[in-house]
Amino acid sequence: MSFAEISGKDNGRIKRICKLQTSSRFRKEEGCFVIEGLRTIDDACENSIRLNELYFTSAAYEKHRTELEKFIACADFVAQISESVAKNISDTFTPQGIFAVAAMPERKEELSHKGKYIALENVQDPANLGAVARTAEALGISGIIITDDSCDPYSPKSLRASMGTLLRLPLIFTDDMPQFLKKTTASTYACVAHGEAEKVGKISFNSFSVAVIGNEANGLTDKTIAVCDKSITIQMLGRAESLNAAAAAAIVMWEMVK
Amino acid sequence: MSFAEISGKDNGRIKRICKLQTSSRFRKEEGCFVIEGLRTIDDACENSIRLNELYFTSAAYEKHRTELEKFIACADFVAQISESVAKNISDTFTPQGIFAVAAMPERKEELSHKGKYIALENVQDPANLGAVARTAEALGISGIIITDDSCDPYSPKSLRASMGTLLRLPLIFTDDMPQFLKKTTASTYACVAHGEAEKVGKISFNSFSVAVIGNEANGLTDKTIAVCDKSITIQMLGRAESLNAAAAAAIVMWEMVK
Repeated sequence: MSFAEISGKDNGRIKRICKLQTSSRFRKEEGCFVIEGLRTIDDACENSIRLNELYFTSAAYEKHRTELEKFIACADFVAQISESVAKNISDTFTPQGIFAVAAMPERKEELSHKGKYIALENVQDPANLGAVARTAEALGISGIIITDDSCDPYSPKSLRASMGTLLRLPLIFTDDMPQFLKKTTASTYACVAHGEAEKVGKISFNSFSVAVIGNEANGLTDKTIAVCDKSITIQMLGRAESLNAAAAAAIVMWEMVK
Repeated sequence: MSFAEISGKDNGRIKRICKLQTSSRFRKEEGCFVIEGLRTIDDACENSIRLNELYFTSAAYEKHRTELEKFIACADFVAQISESVAKNISDTFTPQGIFAVAAMPERKEELSHKGKYIALENVQDPANLGAVARTAEALGISGIIITDDSCDPYSPKSLRASMGTLLRLPLIFTDDMPQFLKKTTASTYACVAHGEAEKVGKISFNSFSVAVIGNEANGLTDKTIAVCDKSITIQMLGRAESLNAAAAAAIVMWEMVK
């Protein structure tokens, strides 16, 4: 089989991909994002995420022919790229040489079924978002609610940190967490760091629950705490500031599902 | 006050610091390591870690004079360095311009008092080691037991990921985890991923306990599992491979202390 070849980084499509890699705003405007690597593209396909464009180096095609044929069959546009273009697009030091431009899944703003959810208000570190998503998937959490001012789950850093789980887990978006929590019929739990709150471990979470975790430095906003049914806290013996958002979320999700 | 000035990166002391930053073996041979940044050096001082050498740029001295005077009083050798030397030494993109060469704490190979400990066998990612240390400190875990084939807690990456907690928590080293676990009078729990093990959350940990977490890709060695009093597992509903070592450790430590 032969494919269109792109070897110049000034090619319009390549320039657009580079912009999709670096600009969250551009991703939102275009309604698409870049997926890098065989395994994550496979995750996307299995979760019915549409592949608009597919790019690979000749070395990658030789090595992963069978898997690539599957992607080629569902992509709208396919091209081979040079190693230097692959390096240019890639967010990693050692690119695998396989990229897709994918359509963002339809934006969900409501919980479609009852379950246990974790909500993140203004979480900024893609490594934390990725870690929360991985733990959520492992523990069988129903989905992640994310505020629009949080880091972008479709950024290369978030996707890599999550090892693809952000494409597999239901994501629900909101630009107003207090309003979202007010409207839902789920029981809502604000995770806070002060000792007067009810202790995680002494609480039994309702079968339809949302636990909300705040920004890494500032925690939850007062407005969000005010609308939640309960404030809860992880009892600590040591330095509280040592517990990072991903570890706090892991403990809370564990208590929700166990 | 005036200090010796070093502006050339070929200076013998500077070359030695760069080697200490990059080589775990050299750190062990020399029995010392580099600490970067005001806050972490402060942690070291408060934990009676000896400062052999102290380096700072003139800008850093202007900005943090009061704190630096405290360190200067306890360092054996003090020198001012140029910005370019600071960039050369630093493991970060935006160095604060303050460095110390510190003596490694005396190597402890036994648990000095009863308590709840987390043990890491051949954990390779400094980010995981740092995250485990932070959660351990927050939850009031008594110390971390580390095998010599794990990543180095005194590497710049580990220290930064732990935000200094690796200098505050008791660390216990072993080159033979099964032997260590055999000898201790603590109850020992091997964290494994198979369903036949006892479920974390259904177990009450003894007041003197060690829970052992394995390598990110391969888990615990058979030998280590065999000598533990119990095998325990985090019950999962989703994809087990999604739970990373730091999240698993957070859940197990939480169950140990709560």
